[in-house]
Amino acid sequence: MDEFELIRRIAPRSLSHREIEIGIGDDAAVYNPKKGYQEIVCVDTMVDGVHFLSSHSTPADIGYKALAVNISDIAAMGGYPKFYLVSIAVPSGRRESDIEAMYEEMTKLAKLYQMDLIGGDTVSTRGQMVITVTVIGEVEKGRACLRSHARPGDVVFVTGELGSSAAGLSLLLGDRFTNDEGLVQHFMKRHKRPEPRVKAGLICSRYQRVALNDISDGLASELNEIAEASRVSIDIYQDSIPTHSELHKLHSDWEEWVLFGGEDFELAGTISSDQWERFAQECSSCGVPVYKIGQVVQSGEAKVFYHSGQDRILLEKKGYNHFKQDR
Amino acid sequence: MDEFELIRRIAPRSLSHREIEIGIGDDAAVYNPKKGYQEIVCVDTMVDGVHFLSSHSTPADIGYKALAVNISDIAAMGGYPKFYLVSIAVPSGRRESDIEAMYEEMTKLAKLYQMDLIGGDTVSTRGQMVITVTVIGEVEKGRACLRSHARPGDVVFVTGELGSSAAGLSLLLGDRFTNDEGLVQHFMKRHKRPEPRVKAGLICSRYQRVALNDISDGLASELNEIAEASRVSIDIYQDSIPTHSELHKLHSDWEEWVLFGGEDFELAGTISSDQWERFAQECSSCGVPVYKIGQVVQSGEAKVFYHSGQDRILLEKKGYNHFKQDR
Repeated sequence: MDEFELIRRIAPRSLSHREIEIGIGDDAAVYNPKKGYQEIVCVDTMVDGVHFLSSHSTPADIGYKALAVNISDIAAMGGYPKFYLVSIAVPSGRRESDIEAMYEEMTKLAKLYQMDLIGGDTVSTRGQMVITVTVIGEVEKGRACLRSHARPGDVVFVTGELGSSAAGLSLLLGDRFTNDEGLVQHFMKRHKRPEPRVKAGLICSRYQRVALNDISDGLASELNEIAEASRVSIDIYQDSIPTHSELHKLHSDWEEWVLFGGEDFELAGTISSDQWERFAQECSSCGVPVYKIGQVVQSGEAKVFYHSGQDRILLEKKGYNHFKQDR
Repeated sequence: MDEFELIRRIAPRSLSHREIEIGIGDDAAVYNPKKGYQEIVCVDTMVDGVHFLSSHSTPADIGYKALAVNISDIAAMGGYPKFYLVSIAVPSGRRESDIEAMYEEMTKLAKLYQMDLIGGDTVSTRGQMVITVTVIGEVEKGRACLRSHARPGDVVFVTGELGSSAAGLSLLLGDRFTNDEGLVQHFMKRHKRPEPRVKAGLICSRYQRVALNDISDGLASELNEIAEASRVSIDIYQDSIPTHSELHKLHSDWEEWVLFGGEDFELAGTISSDQWERFAQECSSCGVPVYKIGQVVQSGEAKVFYHSGQDRILLEKKGYNHFKQDR
């Protein structure tokens, strides 16, 4: 298939946003930003063998996740996603239908958020597949949820369940620690099809001074980033961190997965303690599971402490670092 | 080096644009778009062995070109570039200093246009290096130079000299068709360090209805895109196309390079014939070399014809297509 033909096939038939004057098909896309809103931009790259395994994931899974992780970054700012651009480096032997399947799945996910594909390119490679997605979103002016927003006394919270994505990855890689097919499917889905917490992020943006990160590199890493950016310390408690009810029985690594596994794409943040109750109720009424896991404390240093039983353990910002370890 | 440390090193020390609220260092960048302007976004990916040869180019060359080709896309819309995001998939064996050299050279180029780095990521790969750059620019509202703007009677023009980038690539690949070191350096520079025609694009945006493309895939391909988008035909003339004065003496492939070589990153476009003289004068007074190479003609079809002596040859949209050929 030639690239021009591919562009024709992947170009959206209809657009969700009237602000677009030119989408795919010219040198660049042109659109009109809205007044009273700020724009948010992020980009994330996924490499076969590092961020996904094409031997274990369908093209649809890969496309889904490449877009989802970027939407998650927009959610972590309290914004909503509007436009996306996709660049794929395709290994020569790859079938066209695989690339189309990736785009199709991205189109489906984009529809859930009324997002429009406005550009990108497809190039060949003799190496592994590399997919880069750029997402442009919006947030109401002055409402972005920044890492620097945490203050002593704030409640530390997370959404959803943690560690399940890492459990899914472990299963994918052949560690069959359970024969319960329902559980296997649950954990694998958490790894392959993470749901970005856009609704939760939007709720956060309506409160003053919420600090927010999405959990891509692991809870320890995300909370350390907030601690550093806000120059505060954080205490969290093992028994408050939400996990799947079976997780701790299934594998001795469960705690490692919860703290350092990453890729859960839940949100971790802090909010003023006097707003916590109202916030938790609003989340709950919108179907967003949210849990208090600790608090921000005064300190001369930016540190994160993990309380497990009687122990208070310093949580290092290790997380998943592409320069230090390869999957 | 760890990724967090790299972010600290590459994060710009100062920003050119005050509209930025958050640049690098949170989940995404946040900024305030300007009133009365439209935004332009583009993304381009370069793969080692396909779009560049790391054996023949320095990291600085690679970084330069990855950013330059995206700035060129913004120029081809008549806009000016403002922000950029960089994603690099780095082969495990690569030295940190190489990656820093790439970023340094991008920083230098960005400074020429007062552009700010606002995001990106660096991931490891076991394959080839892949670098993806996203550029966000602006154009005065309603002034974007679209491919669909050509009308019968318009003048067809190009900037700069064509075919020299392909000549440089040929030299790089070992075809030493000249021993004149000055020429060798000239052609190689045209290939490795193309200068995006931002000034020319801005001039174009001040005229009504200029159709514009940057020459990335070759003149034939770019003019065919304009012909198709505008539903017109185009006649161009061999002896009007600007080339280096020595080119035709040096290699039998010179005409192929001019028409299909691509990567010159000059601009090709059309403008109303009654505005041509004023436009050419304005370009000339700004130091932008611009040449009339033909005209838009009425036709039921969208075709491009190349006049060489007495011959009128149909120019196909072949250009450089990553799915059909590998360099």
